Amino acid sequence: MSPSAAVQTAHSHPEQAEIRIEQVLQALGDPVRLQIVRALALATDGLACGAVPLPVTNSTRTHHMRILREAGVVTMRAEGTRRISTLRRADLDTLYPGLLDAVLDAPH
Amino acid sequence: MSPSAAVQTAHSHPEQAEIRIEQVLQALGDPVRLQIVRALALATDGLACGAVPLPVTNSTRTHHMRILREAGVVTMRAEGTRRISTLRRADLDTLYPGLLDAVLDAPH
Repeated sequence: MSPSAAVQTAHSHPEQAEIRIEQVLQALGDPVRLQIVRALALATDGLACGAVPLPVTNSTRTHHMRILREAGVVTMRAEGTRRISTLRRADLDTLYPGLLDAVLDAPH
Repeated sequence: MSPSAAVQTAHSHPEQAEIRIEQVLQALGDPVRLQIVRALALATDGLACGAVPLPVTNSTRTHHMRILREAGVVTMRAEGTRRISTLRRADLDTLYPGLLDAVLDAPH
């Protein structure tokens, strides 16, 4: 197994059919995670984990990314030594049409 | 102050302008609370708190209703000795168009 494959294995993602609305809502229902999701929504090719300025420690950032990944909100892939996160917009828009737009457009 | 007014005071509700998307998502991101919201969505005149069959104790039910109320998802009013809960559909649809429908229509 290549190191890259090992990283992919470590970052398991739910299939679209395994995504649950409660878990998605809970993942989105946090100010820091919503900030990450807003940034990822503007970056169709994904973002390196450290690219979003956040007022939290690295371990807290990793914790939030894991919750988003496990809920099916983001995918993470390895590019060399970097982890690139991408919003699963197609999966979320298919399962819950209008949800992500409503959240991203929320005035407060 | 009448007993009814006292109950109203005890159940404070955020104004529409005070509702926050993170708190709404967090309130909706729980299986029991989502079950309550689904039942309330079908009852435009509201429901008595005990009317939704839930596999939880009364104190847990009260806890979940409080979270929904404080997030701005439901209103509670006293009718005699009963508390009637109503989904704040107009407020939520105004602030977050499409959110509630996406959540209620979620296949899983």
